[in-house]
Amino acid sequence: MNAESSDLDRSAAAPLYLQIVESLRREILGHDLPPGAALPSESDLQQRFGVSRSVVRQAIARLAEDGLVHRHQGRPSIVAPQPEHRRLVQRATGMFDQFARTGRRLSTRIDAIEHDVPPPEAQAYLRTRDTLRLERLRSIDGEPLSYVRTWLPRARVPDLTAAELTDASLHKLLSTKFGLRAVSGRRQVRAVAADERLAVALEVPSGAPLLLLEGETGDQHGNPLEWFTTWHRADKVVFDIDVTEGAELLSLDPAGARPAEEPPAGDEIARARDLVAELGRLLG
Amino acid sequence: MNAESSDLDRSAAAPLYLQIVESLRREILGHDLPPGAALPSESDLQQRFGVSRSVVRQAIARLAEDGLVHRHQGRPSIVAPQPEHRRLVQRATGMFDQFARTGRRLSTRIDAIEHDVPPPEAQAYLRTRDTLRLERLRSIDGEPLSYVRTWLPRARVPDLTAAELTDASLHKLLSTKFGLRAVSGRRQVRAVAADERLAVALEVPSGAPLLLLEGETGDQHGNPLEWFTTWHRADKVVFDIDVTEGAELLSLDPAGARPAEEPPAGDEIARARDLVAELGRLLG
Repeated sequence: MNAESSDLDRSAAAPLYLQIVESLRREILGHDLPPGAALPSESDLQQRFGVSRSVVRQAIARLAEDGLVHRHQGRPSIVAPQPEHRRLVQRATGMFDQFARTGRRLSTRIDAIEHDVPPPEAQAYLRTRDTLRLERLRSIDGEPLSYVRTWLPRARVPDLTAAELTDASLHKLLSTKFGLRAVSGRRQVRAVAADERLAVALEVPSGAPLLLLEGETGDQHGNPLEWFTTWHRADKVVFDIDVTEGAELLSLDPAGARPAEEPPAGDEIARARDLVAELGRLLG
Repeated sequence: MNAESSDLDRSAAAPLYLQIVESLRREILGHDLPPGAALPSESDLQQRFGVSRSVVRQAIARLAEDGLVHRHQGRPSIVAPQPEHRRLVQRATGMFDQFARTGRRLSTRIDAIEHDVPPPEAQAYLRTRDTLRLERLRSIDGEPLSYVRTWLPRARVPDLTAAELTDASLHKLLSTKFGLRAVSGRRQVRAVAADERLAVALEVPSGAPLLLLEGETGDQHGNPLEWFTTWHRADKVVFDIDVTEGAELLSLDPAGARPAEEPPAGDEIARARDLVAELGRLLG
């Protein structure tokens, strides 16, 4: 990764300094240049891009203006931390509740609530073709954060209305109105490029990276409750994941964090299973 | 999201059918059109893009050729599932071991192993500026999967060589050579656009979405072991996450999956803590 090369298009309409800004912006947002790291020196940048010092300075001034770096007299500029919203994806808890706990309020616009046939994967999980498709745009401080498409088995959520979902938590509503608690499930996380429809909804350029969370949620009885796809603006949302011995333990997979040469003995596994069961009874 | 619009650039050099291919490819890879979903009908696509039936057919033929859809005589084409590699990000276990378990072997090329000063976040976690920077490219079947930058405290890993890391598991080596087991930590997941250096290393177009996993790993004694940033090709890698009551329990956060109105009683929490501690002793 040390190979540096000038990648400027000297025939392009965009001024050279803006091309340098774009190149460094990607390195900063992509954490190739992480928060707190020093930008390469002015002379390194001059050499890398094959431009004059004044062009480099113009580029750095623009990065500082955009909040991507902090300038320091006589020293290299420093990559600024980016404002981000964090989401715990190991929790069944929805985004609304997680943000409410931080004192931020999400607003939710309902774009669709329609009787529709779900895609095969959702159908297989929900065990029905008779579903409600819910499309929601979530924003914070007036800025779009995520677009959510949720499939719900119609029989389990009769009379769900757009009005009661506007600026509200779906999970909370499922709990208070239907006694259904979102407790478990599986999630997949992907990075994707925004297609045109998502780009318009989320107010990003077409092709901008989005953080995709997709999965299923079951209720407290182990029955399928929802299947959803959520596209998050990648410049605003980060997923947090805790990796703990505890999480490993609960999978009771001896091939987990421990090296293969020292698996737990059979009776230890049995005892661990009992403990997990008791934990489940206590807090489940 | 039902607003459709023609977005073709009729003055562009690319033929119209290729612009349609690109537009639909994004919808497919971004799961706006998920695997198993039907493509819009030929006449819907004609209307949406304002083109003739033959241009629509040319576009669908290309999508089929690229493995993105399956064609069916007289019926709409169906979005094909994409070949993907899955990674469990809740586990401290590295990518190498996870793939070994599926029978696939990762190859690892060492691009750098150098004495270097880590970025502030890594420094704060590792509690030292005296670190080794390790840069690795991981591939499967000759195709790049991920680029990993790891910071290791030098004092804990004396005499680590590129040779012993080539096509090997760093975590396994840490365990066998230094008795250090990677057991816990925190991870952040982001979607980013590939900068030029990562695009070259991972053989994707500049700006392509990448799935970024960043975080810290502690050893069995709770000491900092590594700080890493891994960029994954978004078209190849999916992260799997299990959301379970169990995972909730272990956080012992009464504000977790349970509705706020029924937090567990204090003595239940205390008992749960004891159980978790015993579990830790048993399997830790």
